[in-house]
Amino acid sequence: MKPILVVGGGPAGLVAAAGAAGVGRKVILVEAKDKLGGNPIHNHYSVFTPNQVDAETAMKEILSPVEKNPNVDVRLSTMVTAVEGEAPNLKVTLKGAKGEEKVDVGAAVIATGFEHFDPGRETQVYGYYEYDDVLTLLDAEKMLKAKQFLRPSNGQKPKSVCFIQCVGSRDRQIGNQWCSKVCCGIASQQSIEVKELLPDAKVFIFYIDMRTYGFWEDDIYWKAQEEKKVNYIRGIVTEITKRGDQLVIKGEDTTMGRPMEVPMDVVVLSVGMEPSPGTKAMAKMFNLPLEHHGWIGRAGNSPLNTVSTSRAGVFVAGAAGGPADLEDSTSQGGLAALKAVGYLNGLKA
Amino acid sequence: MKPILVVGGGPAGLVAAAGAAGVGRKVILVEAKDKLGGNPIHNHYSVFTPNQVDAETAMKEILSPVEKNPNVDVRLSTMVTAVEGEAPNLKVTLKGAKGEEKVDVGAAVIATGFEHFDPGRETQVYGYYEYDDVLTLLDAEKMLKAKQFLRPSNGQKPKSVCFIQCVGSRDRQIGNQWCSKVCCGIASQQSIEVKELLPDAKVFIFYIDMRTYGFWEDDIYWKAQEEKKVNYIRGIVTEITKRGDQLVIKGEDTTMGRPMEVPMDVVVLSVGMEPSPGTKAMAKMFNLPLEHHGWIGRAGNSPLNTVSTSRAGVFVAGAAGGPADLEDSTSQGGLAALKAVGYLNGLKA
Repeated sequence: MKPILVVGGGPAGLVAAAGAAGVGRKVILVEAKDKLGGNPIHNHYSVFTPNQVDAETAMKEILSPVEKNPNVDVRLSTMVTAVEGEAPNLKVTLKGAKGEEKVDVGAAVIATGFEHFDPGRETQVYGYYEYDDVLTLLDAEKMLKAKQFLRPSNGQKPKSVCFIQCVGSRDRQIGNQWCSKVCCGIASQQSIEVKELLPDAKVFIFYIDMRTYGFWEDDIYWKAQEEKKVNYIRGIVTEITKRGDQLVIKGEDTTMGRPMEVPMDVVVLSVGMEPSPGTKAMAKMFNLPLEHHGWIGRAGNSPLNTVSTSRAGVFVAGAAGGPADLEDSTSQGGLAALKAVGYLNGLKA
Repeated sequence: MKPILVVGGGPAGLVAAAGAAGVGRKVILVEAKDKLGGNPIHNHYSVFTPNQVDAETAMKEILSPVEKNPNVDVRLSTMVTAVEGEAPNLKVTLKGAKGEEKVDVGAAVIATGFEHFDPGRETQVYGYYEYDDVLTLLDAEKMLKAKQFLRPSNGQKPKSVCFIQCVGSRDRQIGNQWCSKVCCGIASQQSIEVKELLPDAKVFIFYIDMRTYGFWEDDIYWKAQEEKKVNYIRGIVTEITKRGDQLVIKGEDTTMGRPMEVPMDVVVLSVGMEPSPGTKAMAKMFNLPLEHHGWIGRAGNSPLNTVSTSRAGVFVAGAAGGPADLEDSTSQGGLAALKAVGYLNGLKA
């Protein structure tokens, strides 16, 4: 019985690997980094939305079923460098610390995820590489996990903090037309954590539409407003400059219909999702057509199919296929593993 | 080998049943109605969001793997009326046309979904039961599927149509604090279909936040605005009255900061999701604690776990656990089936 290859050791890949192993299949789990866990671990996530659970603790629940599992062969610091043949006879070249190896696998799950938009790329208006106190959600996440939210420029407690939504999302000019799904919830959750660390700080979120769908609405968005007094301002920030030792954000308050110019100690850019380099590489390697935004495309073009690609026996799960929250990633990891096992079982019948 | 019970024949249940059967498990699929398909079939969905595929055609892709499958024992017009014991020794009483029967099952997947908010319940301000030309998304969906969108009051083509978002969602007063996730996308998709049938009609969508996440952003929301000239107005409608043979909507345009009073031929209420009667019944029957909004709760309180309940061997999938789009439902159906099969396999080991 040939193993199933899972590429990517983040939430989608972990659930896929544990799931396929749990129904008796051998799995080879390939991860480019030297540790499993994907973005939540490598980018030091603090607290998960909307349940407000400690990210590292929660991750153990999907890490340990993989790490302990004799059916999962975990290959860290390993890349897929070549793919030959068709499922169920895929010959995949893995390049790891000990050199190259060819493995025979019956099916594959691509779970190589997203990377965060680099706010220096086209949106220099926000001065991310220019001003120390302009952060991304990632920088903020790491600080919140460490329970210290101080101004990088001078080590002092910020008196005013704002989040700017949709940086690298919903933006035709930079080519990222999609909404990245999670940034409204993440910024709202971070705003709660900032207020818990710094109860006297004024915290603002500048947004176009507050996309706290499902339970994120009251569990996060209402909580931020009502319990933590976070100020949500429907407005567009077009420029960040510096005045003295403070940042100044300029833009328009679209609810009040007037221009705004507000001094701010720290600005957090809510950077969106883009296909990761691994996702782009695997799309090429496995010869998987991209959908029109540039993510790995699903076969059949239907919301009822979240994991099948145009190649039989090759599945996609999580943010390799488009913006995804953790619920999406883990659920799709499960469906992809189930379909991979079902695909291999069907061949026997 | 005891079968897995799947309760509910909508998208989540269909994918769960086909998936578990596809890896060699026997499945009993119980559906209260006389036909499989859930809301998309029984409520005559027209076109799925965001891929804009014909709903009935797309549903065949998940219906046929179940209908053709010798491993899936489909019980239509059947209810679960009692549950005894614990997994893997659940004794479940099924009541169908031929009377009652007790079945032994090893695990269960609850996929009993949602029902649409009844806009006559507490929001009489919208006059749903009073005015013929006030519709719900459901009424509109059925008309769009039939490719005829006419005023119910007089059979004429409407010259103006508007959608009112968040009816029965994001509403503390009626107790539904959640966002129902899909209504922004569905209304936008319906507005496109209305404009295709009636290119001269003026179409408006009154919304609080436009929650067209992920690819729904440009594939649906931008398309509606740019190609179909649908007018999105950020505003709250507080009342619908009648003047002559037209409806009049009253409220506030929050972007312009001014009151509005607009005559309209047809008003569509974007009704949200509530736990279905079947979901409430199964929660009681299987003794599953509800989360604080009243949907079936997940064990562990983490976004990494979308399907496990507090009872071993009993899983939840799709909108029985909270507002869900079709991607959520089908992905969770897969993960739930995988976990159910894994649970039963683990017992052997």
